[in-house]
Amino acid sequence: MSPTAGKYILTISCPDTTGLVATVSGFLRDHACFIDESSQYGDPATQRFFMRAVFTPSAASPSAEEIGKRFAAVARPLDMTWDIVPADRRPRVLIAVSKIGHCLHDLLHRWQAGQMPIDVVGVFSNHEDMRSIVEWHRLPFHYLPITAATKETQEAAWLNLVDKTGADLVVLARYMQVLSPKTAKLLSGRCINIHHSFLPSFMGAKPYQQAYARGVKIIGATAHFVTDGLDEGPIIEQAVERVDHTHSVADMVAVGRDLENVVLSRAVRYYAERRVLQNGQKTVVFR
Amino acid sequence: MSPTAGKYILTISCPDTTGLVATVSGFLRDHACFIDESSQYGDPATQRFFMRAVFTPSAASPSAEEIGKRFAAVARPLDMTWDIVPADRRPRVLIAVSKIGHCLHDLLHRWQAGQMPIDVVGVFSNHEDMRSIVEWHRLPFHYLPITAATKETQEAAWLNLVDKTGADLVVLARYMQVLSPKTAKLLSGRCINIHHSFLPSFMGAKPYQQAYARGVKIIGATAHFVTDGLDEGPIIEQAVERVDHTHSVADMVAVGRDLENVVLSRAVRYYAERRVLQNGQKTVVFR
Amino acid sequence: MSPTAGKYILTISCPDTTGLVATVSGFLRDHACFIDESSQYGDPATQRFFMRAVFTPSAASPSAEEIGKRFAAVARPLDMTWDIVPADRRPRVLIAVSKIGHCLHDLLHRWQAGQMPIDVVGVFSNHEDMRSIVEWHRLPFHYLPITAATKETQEAAWLNLVDKTGADLVVLARYMQVLSPKTAKLLSGRCINIHHSFLPSFMGAKPYQQAYARGVKIIGATAHFVTDGLDEGPIIEQAVERVDHTHSVADMVAVGRDLENVVLSRAVRYYAERRVLQNGQKTVVFR
Amino acid sequence: MSPTAGKYILTISCPDTTGLVATVSGFLRDHACFIDESSQYGDPATQRFFMRAVFTPSAASPSAEEIGKRFAAVARPLDMTWDIVPADRRPRVLIAVSKIGHCLHDLLHRWQAGQMPIDVVGVFSNHEDMRSIVEWHRLPFHYLPITAATKETQEAAWLNLVDKTGADLVVLARYMQVLSPKTAKLLSGRCINIHHSFLPSFMGAKPYQQAYARGVKIIGATAHFVTDGLDEGPIIEQAVERVDHTHSVADMVAVGRDLENVVLSRAVRYYAERRVLQNGQKTVVFR
Repeated sequence: MSPTAGKYILTISCPDTTGLVATVSGFLRDHACFIDESSQYGDPATQRFFMRAVFTPSAASPSAEEIGKRFAAVARPLDMTWDIVPADRRPRVLIAVSKIGHCLHDLLHRWQAGQMPIDVVGVFSNHEDMRSIVEWHRLPFHYLPITAATKETQEAAWLNLVDKTGADLVVLARYMQVLSPKTAKLLSGRCINIHHSFLPSFMGAKPYQQAYARGVKIIGATAHFVTDGLDEGPIIEQAVERVDHTHSVADMVAVGRDLENVVLSRAVRYYAERRVLQNGQKTVVFR
Repeated sequence: MSPTAGKYILTISCPDTTGLVATVSGFLRDHACFIDESSQYGDPATQRFFMRAVFTPSAASPSAEEIGKRFAAVARPLDMTWDIVPADRRPRVLIAVSKIGHCLHDLLHRWQAGQMPIDVVGVFSNHEDMRSIVEWHRLPFHYLPITAATKETQEAAWLNLVDKTGADLVVLARYMQVLSPKTAKLLSGRCINIHHSFLPSFMGAKPYQQAYARGVKIIGATAHFVTDGLDEGPIIEQAVERVDHTHSVADMVAVGRDLENVVLSRAVRYYAERRVLQNGQKTVVFR
Repeated sequence: MSPTAGKYILTISCPDTTGLVATVSGFLRDHACFIDESSQYGDPATQRFFMRAVFTPSAASPSAEEIGKRFAAVARPLDMTWDIVPADRRPRVLIAVSKIGHCLHDLLHRWQAGQMPIDVVGVFSNHEDMRSIVEWHRLPFHYLPITAATKETQEAAWLNLVDKTGADLVVLARYMQVLSPKTAKLLSGRCINIHHSFLPSFMGAKPYQQAYARGVKIIGATAHFVTDGLDEGPIIEQAVERVDHTHSVADMVAVGRDLENVVLSRAVRYYAERRVLQNGQKTVVFR
Repeated sequence: MSPTAGKYILTISCPDTTGLVATVSGFLRDHACFIDESSQYGDPATQRFFMRAVFTPSAASPSAEEIGKRFAAVARPLDMTWDIVPADRRPRVLIAVSKIGHCLHDLLHRWQAGQMPIDVVGVFSNHEDMRSIVEWHRLPFHYLPITAATKETQEAAWLNLVDKTGADLVVLARYMQVLSPKTAKLLSGRCINIHHSFLPSFMGAKPYQQAYARGVKIIGATAHFVTDGLDEGPIIEQAVERVDHTHSVADMVAVGRDLENVVLSRAVRYYAERRVLQNGQKTVVFR
């Protein structure tokens, strides 16, 4: 049996005030729910409160639907943005890729090996290179070439895919196209990109070349929510690795691949486990 | 004003059951206390629950003494081990050192620079080497030489110091003497040692020589509570650094110094901020 | 064109003495070879000298065969163990796996994506689980079940494979069988294992369970040459990651997967690029 | 006896060409010198060659002075920038600090404990705060206040100190004044600064506040040579540490202190051991 079966995840974001933890944990106790895990954070700068709790209803608890209905009554006066979902509900994920396959390959392997709590609904790409590995995984591969002239149509095509597949999340796994502001906005909080630098260093194109030229001693990778500012969205996860003067750009690219895989897969897993809450231009990540 | 002024820290360890967070947070809300921070953890293996909450009473709250009295009534039936202390109460710390001074120096500098929330009440040593720096810090230096024959007397002498100074914590900052089982037991949970290896690798004497001989590619340092098993107490913090074939034992010692400083100072700070709770032979550290 | 085309790698291990670098680099200059990279190390403890040089012959150089013949005359009186191979010669690698596939999958992806300078000649396993992914990569999969009674026969079967495929290296990519001392000895310096702990901590079975039980704050993985002492062979590479009290054994296993992939693939790449030289029970790794 | 006694360090930077290692190592062998360590690097981008060798003359070697004279004849036609110095010659170091003392304190402790191969010739500051610890170390403390109006005079005053003390290196150990372009240029390659961010992220003032505002998950510190571009000089060393949403600016400052100490002390040690060679806007660091 899955360790998440029968559990629920509650996430909350609201204005901070005295008694919030008591209200929420009291509600769960009063409905005979056991709290397996609970994390909360009050941001002193924004005066906002964030909470994630994993709980298990008991035989004495009402149905999940009823719990949700009653929690809504608690949440409204506190101006909560909240959600209760089964802990084993996997988000539906659509992956985008261009020609460089390591992040895609890594995500698909983790997913296929049962290590990533997502349902991959398909992959789209502006190139054909990744068709074979995608189809080996018995997933639909959507070839959607793009030019400056067809950008709008191409985005419309895969936004249509998002709708048709019911995708909760779009993962840009080295998809080398900048989204239009309109599309970025539409997918706000639902689109994760991997950038191959330690942001905010080396935004934009060819970050490893930039890192090489600057002579840094450490390189990194960053997973972030996509916003309409290029590489400026809320950061979810970062990792770094040492390099030195002997590393060519190609060596940095090779070191970076492992970083990108690890960082992107962590970010997607945090999202899938509902550990990531947006806090303005930043994130709260309950790891 | 200190960021901890007016705040209190509540720590709890007890058998896990439904409703604990609700009980505690409900108690705080009912006494008009705002929760600044709260962390909790239920260990599925031992079925024990651990909690640390930082809270701020308001004008409507009773006195801290009264809050404590009332919480005792809540805690007793739940079999809680608990404590409520002012967040700005600094533990009194007695430091032990032998001839190698970097950890002592580092701790004293952090303390003197206001970066370490402890009150250092003195330093004892089986050697005279560190007298000068200790006295520059205007701290009492107790020279307590030791031989196999005088071990019992020497330990009695500094245990007497612990009593007289009201020390809450003894920090072995590269004190190169193994405590007698009796003394280790007496100081259970109140004595932190820095071991210069990544435990459980290389227990006992000369860990850097052992690491060199084994040809490891990474070395480490470990801060742990002292128990009567040599280097086997609950681990509080560890850190590591890369080495390679060019590192002599002396090079490893040099790399290790920085690790030891960082690891020991973190462990002492976690203790001082009441972030460390013992869980059998392990620790829960709410970082 | 490959960055290694037309280059050669010279590796040397010999007793240390004055003038070795001069002898070797003078030899290369006298044969009109440009040194692209050169690393050397004299171990003060063992008085042995190690060197790795990448060089490019010019139009004025004799043939590689002739260079080798002449170098042999230089090397003999200095008691050198040495080798000169084309830098683009890929070692032939036979991979062993049991049921857990992440290391295999990772190696095969790197190989197939052109990121790993090896020729994979096949995979053998005592289970059928990995057949599909191996065959998708169009590689022969050899199912060689094993029991206590058949251990000798089974080892003979895959040692025969080593011979037939001309494998230079056997990689145990989570192959959960201890090799017999005879086989370990036969493959001395040609067989790399990934152990899922930060050796020498947690040798033997179930290292993550051991790490969990001990309450360490950092876990690791180690790639090493196989010898007849279990998990005691010369260490090639290690890496670590932080964990804390909230990590279950399953969580540690998940964190460890990424470590194992990175560590094993680095070790194999170092081997393939002839960066690893054995120095008794230790290694010199010219990274 | 010091491990460096009787040894010399040769450093070279010159246009790359075939036979350089042979020429240099042949020269040393022909003068009966044993090479203890040797590192070299040819930068394919700039076509420059860099080398650092530690060697020990024997009874059969000429004097160091004579070796130098003869090497000059070898070096001239190859257009080498080079130096031969006794390995135990410690650079003379003048330290600058403002009000924040951890880097100063750390450097002085390492120096006083014999862990840092430098001779500290004094400390200057635009504030009085650090006088006491400097004088406890029996070092001259020079109080040189500065205003916009007196910047030129103040810089002249400490440049005069550099001359009078024969300082080889000026270390800006959290000296919170930007040097004038003229002074930066004058001290080119002889002045190391610690910047409290992972450059090129967060150049300029208040980097921890910038890091906090951006919501990065990792912070860092950078030691670099000072040039007239603010925080743009060649990077010598960097290090990083994880943070998360719970870290206030003050928490980041606290984490950063340890990073700054480690990074700055490494950079100064690399410089003192002549491991750092400038390569245009980058560095070669033979660690």
